Amino acid sequence: MRLTNYFLPLLKEAPKDADIISHQLMLRAGMIKQSSSGIYIWLPMGLAVLKKIEQIIREEQVKAGALEMLMPTIQTADIWKKSGRYDDYGKEMLRIVDRHDREMLYGPTNEEQVTDLVGSFIKSYKSIPKTFFHIQWKFRDEIRPRFGVMRCREFLMKDAYSFDLSEEEGERSYNKMFVSYLRIFKKMELNAIPMKAESGPIGGNMSHEFIILAETGESRVYIDKKLLELEIPDDDIDYSVNLSSVVKKWTTPFAVTEDLYNESEFHKNVLTNDRVMEKGIEVGHVFFFGDKYTKPMNASIQNNEGKIVPLQSGSYGIGVSRLVAAIIEAHHDDRGIIWPKSVSPFDVSLINLKPSNPEVSNICNEIYVKLQENKYNVIYDDTETSAGEKFSRMDLIGIPLQIIVGPNSIKENKIEIKERKNNSRKYINLSEIYNEFPLQA
Amino acid sequence: MRLTNYFLPLLKEAPKDADIISHQLMLRAGMIKQSSSGIYIWLPMGLAVLKKIEQIIREEQVKAGALEMLMPTIQTADIWKKSGRYDDYGKEMLRIVDRHDREMLYGPTNEEQVTDLVGSFIKSYKSIPKTFFHIQWKFRDEIRPRFGVMRCREFLMKDAYSFDLSEEEGERSYNKMFVSYLRIFKKMELNAIPMKAESGPIGGNMSHEFIILAETGESRVYIDKKLLELEIPDDDIDYSVNLSSVVKKWTTPFAVTEDLYNESEFHKNVLTNDRVMEKGIEVGHVFFFGDKYTKPMNASIQNNEGKIVPLQSGSYGIGVSRLVAAIIEAHHDDRGIIWPKSVSPFDVSLINLKPSNPEVSNICNEIYVKLQENKYNVIYDDTETSAGEKFSRMDLIGIPLQIIVGPNSIKENKIEIKERKNNSRKYINLSEIYNEFPLQA
Repeated sequence: MRLTNYFLPLLKEAPKDADIISHQLMLRAGMIKQSSSGIYIWLPMGLAVLKKIEQIIREEQVKAGALEMLMPTIQTADIWKKSGRYDDYGKEMLRIVDRHDREMLYGPTNEEQVTDLVGSFIKSYKSIPKTFFHIQWKFRDEIRPRFGVMRCREFLMKDAYSFDLSEEEGERSYNKMFVSYLRIFKKMELNAIPMKAESGPIGGNMSHEFIILAETGESRVYIDKKLLELEIPDDDIDYSVNLSSVVKKWTTPFAVTEDLYNESEFHKNVLTNDRVMEKGIEVGHVFFFGDKYTKPMNASIQNNEGKIVPLQSGSYGIGVSRLVAAIIEAHHDDRGIIWPKSVSPFDVSLINLKPSNPEVSNICNEIYVKLQENKYNVIYDDTETSAGEKFSRMDLIGIPLQIIVGPNSIKENKIEIKERKNNSRKYINLSEIYNEFPLQA
Repeated sequence: MRLTNYFLPLLKEAPKDADIISHQLMLRAGMIKQSSSGIYIWLPMGLAVLKKIEQIIREEQVKAGALEMLMPTIQTADIWKKSGRYDDYGKEMLRIVDRHDREMLYGPTNEEQVTDLVGSFIKSYKSIPKTFFHIQWKFRDEIRPRFGVMRCREFLMKDAYSFDLSEEEGERSYNKMFVSYLRIFKKMELNAIPMKAESGPIGGNMSHEFIILAETGESRVYIDKKLLELEIPDDDIDYSVNLSSVVKKWTTPFAVTEDLYNESEFHKNVLTNDRVMEKGIEVGHVFFFGDKYTKPMNASIQNNEGKIVPLQSGSYGIGVSRLVAAIIEAHHDDRGIIWPKSVSPFDVSLINLKPSNPEVSNICNEIYVKLQENKYNVIYDDTETSAGEKFSRMDLIGIPLQIIVGPNSIKENKIEIKERKNNSRKYINLSEIYNEFPLQA
């Protein structure tokens, strides 16, 4: 993408009400624009990151055996009355009346909808286990939206729902999602720590939050250092086996959020040198709640003895849009964002220091075309601005690698490659560039 | 995907209120489930098709120079009051009041929102032309939703918006979208005919509907046969040149919808043998409306003479979810759906006629694994049901190719490959299968 064709409305300064660094950087880097309170427009570069995150989640959820489907944003109030949550949910639920005066709502979550669906189709134990997921916009009418997309009203969530015959099998499904989450966050270069959690309005008897560590996080967490060194199953993971040993390994060391924190417990359970007090951001939450929804909503099946029993169910959420901000909280410096490679909106940036110089531009154009042929997604700064402006812009938007081409370096037949993360630079011969960026799969 | 792991809740019979064939087939094939009036859940196979269509549109819009972004579903009423459409829009607009009593709405379209955005960022003629698109859920509170996803309330739409300095340049942007649409529908194997249209509530002075021909269409269209033989620019199209000649070629022959139809005009303009009267389904609509929104909303820029002028704008919609139904209307027979290859939820189906036979299952498993390695998305019927049921199920869901493996054929070291479209069958040697399905890019 040529920058002259792109839409990257950078701001010199973030608005005063942007309190946290991710919100400031997302505004300054032209990723989002507020549309109304707690509701955002995703500008091209912001959307590109959102889609990368979405795709990582999708692939990992599919790998873990979940089936993708898509529920609508607008739900009928009827199913929420059946589950008993219509009154409980309070003002955070955006309630709507349609032209025929029917009570509708913008889904804040989908336990009711998916349970209603499953109850109407799945009648036999032979059709389960099943775990469904969807990636859909949700709305929660926060009384005071803030922190940009971190605590907004319209947000993108991945939510999955498992349906099993017994509690024991339900726990197997829970474990799969648990491990899938470890893998998902790792792929985004996030240290996500599962912590035992209260289940809140979702309900249930087993629940973990996944909290990533970031200096600028919203709440304190207290963990055992061992958690930072635990292994996460790699790509050859087999989801058909019981993953309880992995879950056990991850849930045994001490880890609590501040609302459950008790100092003497912490000191009793964790050696002085292993005590880590950090700030954290919740990015995922998993629940197992058995028949909490399936019972009132009559989502029952016939078991292998011919008996009708309610399905055992759990739900598994990830804040997709929130992750964009959370990744920035964990990956930035004073010059701007530093995208992990897996979620970067572009693979590489190409900076033409002198577009008016035909020799420099010819070389840049050639690199631009060839890198795209080699399947790199390139942002090409072909604008007539100063070198200083180009450098600080590229640092701000945080593409992992910068290829810098200017009149001086090409005199010596050299180009510069800079790594955004550590600011390391190397000069390579022009002819070597396609060794650095070979054809990708 | 093994059918035993998939979720494909087929119906023996479509509900009585499913009036049109696409609605019947989508329900029978387990693609959608009604959630409430005019609102649907997309089950895994339905979503797979929806995503394929979305991706074709995305790629073609990007190719035509449009930038993808994403606007939220919930908008503030303020911008609609500015444009003057808040009162005009009537009961089809889903109006919402949030917890702070602010007037909001679920976007039925996005002219206001994008114009507001562009007006706040684009100030100079140097930053244009720009065309943005997004693929987002919309809501129109139809008084009587019907025909399944063809005329529903919550629907997925691709809408693009162009911003130019002058009317002439605006027309260039219009032409790009026009040609992009021809290409998009062709990729889905649809005969889409652009027809001069009234611009209705969107407004403007130039407008074309894209209508696909299908026997079961909702309204009559009258066209000159020549339109069925016109060429569509291929993959090496250059969008940087003025495409008015292509647009002219496509808009010159006679083509009208029934509301503009006049028999004597038709007879005067089209030779008897060239008169085609068919049924049609609207799948896209393009508008050029100049400063209709930019003027009241103050989206103005400085031109190259330093003068402040309103931007010249157009909008370009495609009914993404509606296309799923429209494609079925155009591609089915009495046994079920016949997916065009480009939008099929799976590339190929594999039917194991006897899963209890280890020899048959070993061969099927090997084919299943190897085809996936070769990058084919395979639906593998590994269920213990009768051959008849397997055949009719696969015909119903319409995957273009079926690989059929049973005890009789493997005795002769043969497998059967059936093309869904024309029911043609061939028997090949087992060893030849990977010539038929070589490694794909």
